[in-house]
Amino acid sequence: MTRRPRTRTTVRRLPDKQVDDRAALDALLDAAFVVHVAVLDEAGQPYVVPLAAARDGDRLLVHGSTASRAFRYLATGAPTCATVTIVDGVVVARSQFESSLHYRSAMVLGSFEVLEGDAKRRALDVLAAALLPNLDGARTPSDQELTATSMLAMPILEWSLKVSGGAPEDAPGDVDRPSWAGVVPLHHHFGTPVDAPDLVAGIAVPAGVADWPAGRA
Amino acid sequence: MTRRPRTRTTVRRLPDKQVDDRAALDALLDAAFVVHVAVLDEAGQPYVVPLAAARDGDRLLVHGSTASRAFRYLATGAPTCATVTIVDGVVVARSQFESSLHYRSAMVLGSFEVLEGDAKRRALDVLAAALLPNLDGARTPSDQELTATSMLAMPILEWSLKVSGGAPEDAPGDVDRPSWAGVVPLHHHFGTPVDAPDLVAGIAVPAGVADWPAGRA
Repeated sequence: MTRRPRTRTTVRRLPDKQVDDRAALDALLDAAFVVHVAVLDEAGQPYVVPLAAARDGDRLLVHGSTASRAFRYLATGAPTCATVTIVDGVVVARSQFESSLHYRSAMVLGSFEVLEGDAKRRALDVLAAALLPNLDGARTPSDQELTATSMLAMPILEWSLKVSGGAPEDAPGDVDRPSWAGVVPLHHHFGTPVDAPDLVAGIAVPAGVADWPAGRA
Repeated sequence: MTRRPRTRTTVRRLPDKQVDDRAALDALLDAAFVVHVAVLDEAGQPYVVPLAAARDGDRLLVHGSTASRAFRYLATGAPTCATVTIVDGVVVARSQFESSLHYRSAMVLGSFEVLEGDAKRRALDVLAAALLPNLDGARTPSDQELTATSMLAMPILEWSLKVSGGAPEDAPGDVDRPSWAGVVPLHHHFGTPVDAPDLVAGIAVPAGVADWPAGRA
């Protein structure tokens, strides 16, 4: 799948790190629990708000309280930016200048639209399935809970993805320095599930929870 | 330490999650490799840009290329917001509505100032020490590298911190549902360091790298 308008999403800094592969974008969006979204207040002051998010095909879903200032702003359809970043490691070079991070970062530009009715309920199902390891038995939202929840969707049309990986790239004059260089990977993985204190006796951790694949962050 | 102006940083949504403890803020800023910073373009379109960052006492340091649009914008002293979020786990409740994330998220409002000369060099030292596990032997920046680097500092004065932890809080009518509930912790830890392919033979991984404490993300 190709991206449409490119002017605002063409990576200018370190363009060799730009990745045009939509599947790589999807993998990053699917790995991240949280996106950071831009919101402006009445005075034009920008805020960066973390929101639990999930990808639903070609759109990004976020949900929150209808009482939230951020959601009221985003519901107006104002232009915004949703950024996802996962740090994958630290690159230790033989110079401070060439030291850096391994990361994957995506920026999706656009505006959110408000979902209502059946579309809202379906989107909540998608979001719950993406954020939770196991939906068996969890009660779906009541009408009152649905009303208290704002569900927004942004099309994934205008985006950029930067991926930084690989070994340190020291200049020839630095390579011979007697100092260690390499990559320290940063891993993100789930630990042992902890039962709720009021869990009904005899309910074991379901396989879907115990075996939740790593790689989320 | 108390915070000064509170109007813009008083948490309105889920205020019970607001934490006023400056030490908790510092711990979060010190754990995070990356902050997400708001930048506006000429048309007023907001972008959210991930930047490697470090805390230096009462200020937040970010560095990048002097050629970067984001750094040129931030260098003007425009009001911005730097947000740090670490996801610590997933709360699986007996209702989808009460399911949520464990997270720590801080928002620092203010504007950056440009550091030059000795102040810039000192700030780069602080940043390198915060982002890298071991500075012994890594070459410090040359004058040319310094010139290519923009170093910005924002005072940590106006901030908010939200911490979400604890067990799922299902309503009494849901607690008896025959479904598992609890918390799935999300851990972030360093893996085994990987030598650079062009590492000088015989240089071992230093203790500071091998023993880099976990908890960074």
